[in-house]
Amino acid sequence: MVMDRVKCGLLDGLVMDASDAVRRLVPRVGTIATGGMSGVAVPKEFPRALADYVGEVGGFSLTLLTGGATSAAYEDALSRIPNAVRARYPYLSGGLYKELANRGSLSFFDYGLNKFNKLVRRGFIKVDLAVFEATAVMDDCGVVPSISLDAVPSFIQGADKVVIEVNESKPVLEGLHDTYSPGDGEVIPIRNVTDRVGGARIMLPREKIGAVIITNAGEGVTKSYKPPARVESEIAEKAVEFMAEEAGRGFFGRLREAGRLVMQPGGGPLASALADAVQGSGLSLGVWAETLPVKWTELIGGPINGISASALYALPGEEPRLDKFLGDYRDFVGRVVIRGQEVSNNPEVIQRLGVISIQQALEVDIYGNANISHIGGDVYNGVGGSVDFAPSASLLIIALPSTTSDGLVSRIVPATGHVDVPEHYVDVVVTEQGVADLRGLPPRDRARAIIENCAHPRFRDGLLKYYEAVVERRGGHEPYDLGLAGKWLND
Amino acid sequence: MVMDRVKCGLLDGLVMDASDAVRRLVPRVGTIATGGMSGVAVPKEFPRALADYVGEVGGFSLTLLTGGATSAAYEDALSRIPNAVRARYPYLSGGLYKELANRGSLSFFDYGLNKFNKLVRRGFIKVDLAVFEATAVMDDCGVVPSISLDAVPSFIQGADKVVIEVNESKPVLEGLHDTYSPGDGEVIPIRNVTDRVGGARIMLPREKIGAVIITNAGEGVTKSYKPPARVESEIAEKAVEFMAEEAGRGFFGRLREAGRLVMQPGGGPLASALADAVQGSGLSLGVWAETLPVKWTELIGGPINGISASALYALPGEEPRLDKFLGDYRDFVGRVVIRGQEVSNNPEVIQRLGVISIQQALEVDIYGNANISHIGGDVYNGVGGSVDFAPSASLLIIALPSTTSDGLVSRIVPATGHVDVPEHYVDVVVTEQGVADLRGLPPRDRARAIIENCAHPRFRDGLLKYYEAVVERRGGHEPYDLGLAGKWLND
Repeated sequence: MVMDRVKCGLLDGLVMDASDAVRRLVPRVGTIATGGMSGVAVPKEFPRALADYVGEVGGFSLTLLTGGATSAAYEDALSRIPNAVRARYPYLSGGLYKELANRGSLSFFDYGLNKFNKLVRRGFIKVDLAVFEATAVMDDCGVVPSISLDAVPSFIQGADKVVIEVNESKPVLEGLHDTYSPGDGEVIPIRNVTDRVGGARIMLPREKIGAVIITNAGEGVTKSYKPPARVESEIAEKAVEFMAEEAGRGFFGRLREAGRLVMQPGGGPLASALADAVQGSGLSLGVWAETLPVKWTELIGGPINGISASALYALPGEEPRLDKFLGDYRDFVGRVVIRGQEVSNNPEVIQRLGVISIQQALEVDIYGNANISHIGGDVYNGVGGSVDFAPSASLLIIALPSTTSDGLVSRIVPATGHVDVPEHYVDVVVTEQGVADLRGLPPRDRARAIIENCAHPRFRDGLLKYYEAVVERRGGHEPYDLGLAGKWLND
Repeated sequence: MVMDRVKCGLLDGLVMDASDAVRRLVPRVGTIATGGMSGVAVPKEFPRALADYVGEVGGFSLTLLTGGATSAAYEDALSRIPNAVRARYPYLSGGLYKELANRGSLSFFDYGLNKFNKLVRRGFIKVDLAVFEATAVMDDCGVVPSISLDAVPSFIQGADKVVIEVNESKPVLEGLHDTYSPGDGEVIPIRNVTDRVGGARIMLPREKIGAVIITNAGEGVTKSYKPPARVESEIAEKAVEFMAEEAGRGFFGRLREAGRLVMQPGGGPLASALADAVQGSGLSLGVWAETLPVKWTELIGGPINGISASALYALPGEEPRLDKFLGDYRDFVGRVVIRGQEVSNNPEVIQRLGVISIQQALEVDIYGNANISHIGGDVYNGVGGSVDFAPSASLLIIALPSTTSDGLVSRIVPATGHVDVPEHYVDVVVTEQGVADLRGLPPRDRARAIIENCAHPRFRDGLLKYYEAVVERRGGHEPYDLGLAGKWLND
């Protein structure tokens, strides 16, 4: 049986319904890894069939790995079988499972993605079954991936069996991907944003393939992120203005002259606002990203000269842009490269390319320590690329609104309950209020710079009062008082 | 004038007394960088002459950069001119300047060394004068360095002028060094611990050399570290036992079989205790270190098959071992390589070699966040290699005694006032009490594992009580309460 999208004869007999695949391949106790990230390229048929089967048969204990934020459809399906799910890694985007993690009844830990991919690839996290979306299986049995490559190469290497979900609603995206996966001890030979050092297709051993599912289901509406608000536009403008100044002199000036300025615009609504802000900045930039709003691809030929990302996704309201990109994908071959996370988030390449990284945070303390992931003790966001990009970026900009959206709570705080990115890595803090350039400053000057330039005027005096109190009462190189800080937060 | 140790005719006329060099080259306002690390290879004549001159003339405002922990002689000299020193980076080992930093009257920030070297090399931290210890200048004007290479390659690249202090008390250490300094955008071509990819001598442009000083002063007695105590031996034994188990299976088993197990034994007394513990472990290891106690070189041919370090130093009482190494250095050429910090602490190489990193901490919270540097608000230690090694190590072990040496204060705490290494990077915590393997555990299980395995029995109940209280009162994925934590610490 040769089909339009499954041209490899060796797979005859493996094309089946999702319900058959689930019945044949899902272990009673084991680990199932599904590809997809930022809500895109998440398998469409498999999760529903999994929930049906597990709910019907009962007695399962599963660990679920994902490539990142899943789709609403995935979460809806899995929310029917919470008792069958023992653990989830490395990211929770919302819904029932986030609630369970915050109640302490779901095993969940939020890994940086470079580390997570290595743990899987090296066998520390064992995978029984890997499931990922593809757009075709070609004559040579090479698999053409979908719009996200995320952790798929690592899942496949770590897995005993693989299910390929071929999605016919997208074109065959041949040529967009670099499926290279780093080998231990190897040099990663990438020197430019759009270098391709591996094949465009995933070649996987025939005996690993457990099933091929065909679907025509499109991407749903994105729920992972909010659209950018006015405050994000203001932050993005300030951040880009700062970058443009840096690019006017010294090290970044030399990179600009050599056409080698590269940035990573973080994730979510800020990444979208940054796409607007770089237009008219006069900059010419490469983008080396983890996951990236698809609207960035529209800037190619303008301010953007090349893009590497582990996934391209649509923010809410921007879904037609993803459809347009998919329709025109041939125009982007060679200028947009989709890679696995162990490459996109690899410190070796981030350092080599001199990436300027802009990371969004939930809150920042007065010394520049950033909390990316927790509100109170509750996990809110994943750490995303921050723990991978921060240590190796040539310039790390932490960007956030100075307050919560209702204006009631300052995001510049005396102390954070969770530090994901310690001050040592943080060069610059940007809010809609202004920019604090922390390079070369000792902690006490960092505190003054952040409070004066970044805090909202309503909270500035309170923060200064806390700061002056700890200087007086506690003193030291980086004065703090957990009790006072806790009190400040509760007041 | 051709001298025994300065064979390069081009330098005729530049050999002078330290006092002349200082008078000619030290700017009224500017930055002076001196090489040396862990107390060794710090210039001997220049700091004294600098303090004499600056004290006599007055009106100076200097920023002092160092390669790491300086010598007692350096600190003694500089402590005579505190009013002339505006700022110091990136590390303070003790004495008057640490006091000044903790009073807030000295500008000081504690950079990770990979980042610090880049800031200097790329011109973000400008250097007027770089001074470093060498053991000879050869016929070709190539400089043979001393027992530490630390930040010297970056200081030289960043500096307007360079002073070479040739120390005749050490042999000409030709062949021990790899003076390679990474170029921006380049692959660092190191694939094995002892690979040498640059020259053994530093070649620097004639016009940069401002003076050559000759000295015969030996290294003083080390004050940077304490000798290892019994508790460090117990910790080291537990850590090595854990490593040996890991090396018996899976990924690390494969590295062992390929002869590619590599470790970094942290710094200070624990690094010394680890040298004792690896003997009899049955392991064969390469060592990829930042700064390293010289006693490790005695294990070559035994459990250690090769060493790379940015400096080799003696712990207190171990000074004769350094003398012995210097006398026998020829036996170690090819098996010991001394490198600059931008290589030793480079995430690209740390990741490629799969380094198992053991980092000492001052305290660890119940979730595994580590404080390396601060006690209260006071800077106590530098972050050292931790911020460079933690994100890219194949296995990160945080090692520390469960209490302070008087037993009165637990080093396992509800929350730390300073996080240098966030939980995301931390795989294992080891104290003399036991080992907590945190891989794959969610935060609440991490807390139980750390409290039960690593806390001192005297503090275990108190920590559990805090933990249970925050679970009940605050809940969440990673429950905490800054106020309660502050109270716990003060009780």
